[in-house]
Amino acid sequence: MQAATASIITIGDELLIGQVIDTNSAWIAQELNKAGIWLTRRVAVGDVWQDIWRALDEEKQHADVILITGGLGPTADDITKPLLCQYFGGTLVTNAEALENIRHIFTTLLKRPILDVNLKQAEVPDTCIPLQNANGTAPGMWFEENNKIFVSMPGVPHEMKAMMQSIVLPRLQERLLVQPIIHRTLLVTGIGESFLAEKIKSVEEALPSYIRLAYLPNLGMVRLRLSATGANPEAIHTTLDDITAKLRTLLQGHLIAEEDIPLEVLVGRMLAQQHKTVATAESCTGGYIAHLLTAHAKSSAFFSGSVVCYHRKVKEEVLQVDSKLIRDEGTVNKEVAVQMCRGVLALLHTDYAIAVTGLMGPDAGDEPVPVGTVWIAAGSAEHIEAQEFFFRFDRRRNLELTAVAALNKLRQFILQHG
Amino acid sequence: MQAATASIITIGDELLIGQVIDTNSAWIAQELNKAGIWLTRRVAVGDVWQDIWRALDEEKQHADVILITGGLGPTADDITKPLLCQYFGGTLVTNAEALENIRHIFTTLLKRPILDVNLKQAEVPDTCIPLQNANGTAPGMWFEENNKIFVSMPGVPHEMKAMMQSIVLPRLQERLLVQPIIHRTLLVTGIGESFLAEKIKSVEEALPSYIRLAYLPNLGMVRLRLSATGANPEAIHTTLDDITAKLRTLLQGHLIAEEDIPLEVLVGRMLAQQHKTVATAESCTGGYIAHLLTAHAKSSAFFSGSVVCYHRKVKEEVLQVDSKLIRDEGTVNKEVAVQMCRGVLALLHTDYAIAVTGLMGPDAGDEPVPVGTVWIAAGSAEHIEAQEFFFRFDRRRNLELTAVAALNKLRQFILQHG
Repeated sequence: MQAATASIITIGDELLIGQVIDTNSAWIAQELNKAGIWLTRRVAVGDVWQDIWRALDEEKQHADVILITGGLGPTADDITKPLLCQYFGGTLVTNAEALENIRHIFTTLLKRPILDVNLKQAEVPDTCIPLQNANGTAPGMWFEENNKIFVSMPGVPHEMKAMMQSIVLPRLQERLLVQPIIHRTLLVTGIGESFLAEKIKSVEEALPSYIRLAYLPNLGMVRLRLSATGANPEAIHTTLDDITAKLRTLLQGHLIAEEDIPLEVLVGRMLAQQHKTVATAESCTGGYIAHLLTAHAKSSAFFSGSVVCYHRKVKEEVLQVDSKLIRDEGTVNKEVAVQMCRGVLALLHTDYAIAVTGLMGPDAGDEPVPVGTVWIAAGSAEHIEAQEFFFRFDRRRNLELTAVAALNKLRQFILQHG
Repeated sequence: MQAATASIITIGDELLIGQVIDTNSAWIAQELNKAGIWLTRRVAVGDVWQDIWRALDEEKQHADVILITGGLGPTADDITKPLLCQYFGGTLVTNAEALENIRHIFTTLLKRPILDVNLKQAEVPDTCIPLQNANGTAPGMWFEENNKIFVSMPGVPHEMKAMMQSIVLPRLQERLLVQPIIHRTLLVTGIGESFLAEKIKSVEEALPSYIRLAYLPNLGMVRLRLSATGANPEAIHTTLDDITAKLRTLLQGHLIAEEDIPLEVLVGRMLAQQHKTVATAESCTGGYIAHLLTAHAKSSAFFSGSVVCYHRKVKEEVLQVDSKLIRDEGTVNKEVAVQMCRGVLALLHTDYAIAVTGLMGPDAGDEPVPVGTVWIAAGSAEHIEAQEFFFRFDRRRNLELTAVAALNKLRQFILQHG
């Protein structure tokens, strides 16, 4: 059986001048995947009539499902609805349920008067099945033509997500005969992409044709992703288990997880399992590591808090870093990192702590080390280890690499001393 | 004169299963825009021969420039180079400069032996102009055919960016006669999209046809973007000045900036201009506000540090929040926010502070308030103001909305009391 295929059309000038990063598509892609639908293309076009029309013409040639986001707002630059109305030869009619929803949002939630443009959002082409929007005023639309399904959804992420999950995905699974796509992701650290490829060559060359292997390098780690689809999911899982076992043997010391999770979730899980707590003392990372750890639910089980000591005085007064040391040797060195780590352990009474001091760029200020130099300390009341790193990229990437290095340092410390 | 148009083809399975968010395209879009090239489409396809081929066939129908990223890695799933070689009828030949670059990276920087697959990265089709990669091993490729330009670049963001900036953009500007696209963005807060549209209707209806207006709502703010292109940039600027002046009058109290900058940059600039400093005391935001403030260069001019007080004990012991208050009324209330603010001001000796306590979800724990409740305090040693907010979205979005609300609260406080 052939898997059902999908294409996403994202509409909006903001995507073409780079004012907005398209996070919707990645989310939709993941959900389609879980539902067993292969996303084969993604297209972004502006709020331009003929460009949207052309995208519809092209995408329906190749995909079974065309998901459209954006262009449903109440303002004049939003032309998706009239266009779809014309494309599928219909007339705009007011949908009672959508109208009721808009009234509810304005009178009960927003407590604002309703404008004509808001009421017009309740109109949908009579050729579509309207999809109610639980989180906003614009209804979605479901069209079918020559066995192809077209779904138009709002571009606002939380509106689109709720609509996908509650209405669109269940309907798609009902309408299409879909086979699940099975992924297995291995998280590998401390080895470059080409060395990794060399190391696992024997496994890669012996892969059955229905299994694809991809290398996804990111921030000093590589994700190895195996993907497969077929009529017998159980047999596929068994085959993937076998391949994973072989890779596990070949990648000893480098394989840190057998699922696709962020490093901070992996570290958080280790801490929660041991009922241990962690704190961070952050200079150059400015709270980014604390943010990563707390971006996920249930982080209060292991994360106590953080001292962001951007200014020298905070290092000295709050974390008790020796002021003479800073005066003589600056703030980016091993001893400052170790003292920051010790200081935050004492102040927040946690089992573990991470401390980071470095220069993220672009300016070095008056530190006696080059931009990109970072000292990371990780440890407990009994023992603290520190390591120097050097990152040679822009501020953003240096920050991300530093956070990954710090979390990895803590991971290694817990494995050795936990 | 017709503006030159471009299309981006992004290659990689990871983009179609949602494992990676495409940030490259937004960056490329911005750079093209500045260079006066209209990006009209973006397409993402997987590592699949016929899908890439089809994308090349289609995009060259409509755009003058086709920018291709991804699929240049050393591993077997990377097929962009052999495909382009065949598409443009060439033969792979070793490029001496690229080879030298690879040797340099491995022997001098990485200090690792070179594998055959790495050496093969120095091969390029003899039908292209090779583009050297200053940050990696894979060279880019520049092809021309029937007056269309095709540029293939690595997908690794910092490699692509350096190649675009140092080689591709200058060459494109040289080869195409380009007219700059002029944007004007106004940052509006405290008013919904449709009310905003109603308020500025008179201006919008009187816009000349060569000026486009877009509404970009995001995180409780709306960016209003005017875009124009034409033979006489000075006249356009004058017209945009006039329109901006009219909008300024109509949007009094709502217009917070006349450029497209993040709120944290706006607030940072206000602080730096006044030579004032700020600290944050963050419970539910877990360091995210500190991270936003320090993600930009030169933040040390105004940001001193932060206490992330995720655990109740940190609020009490480090920020001197009354433990009886917390025992009796929980941690999400006005008085805790005010005490956190006072505590961090006293500890870090800054001119201003922001304090945030709330429930980001999904779980409420044992707090007596519903998920989504947030108290934000902003103030100085003389005076502290607090406000309650309620956000009804998922954890991620609640976090972002809370950070924007907190930064905006500080902005308002500085305007009134600074």
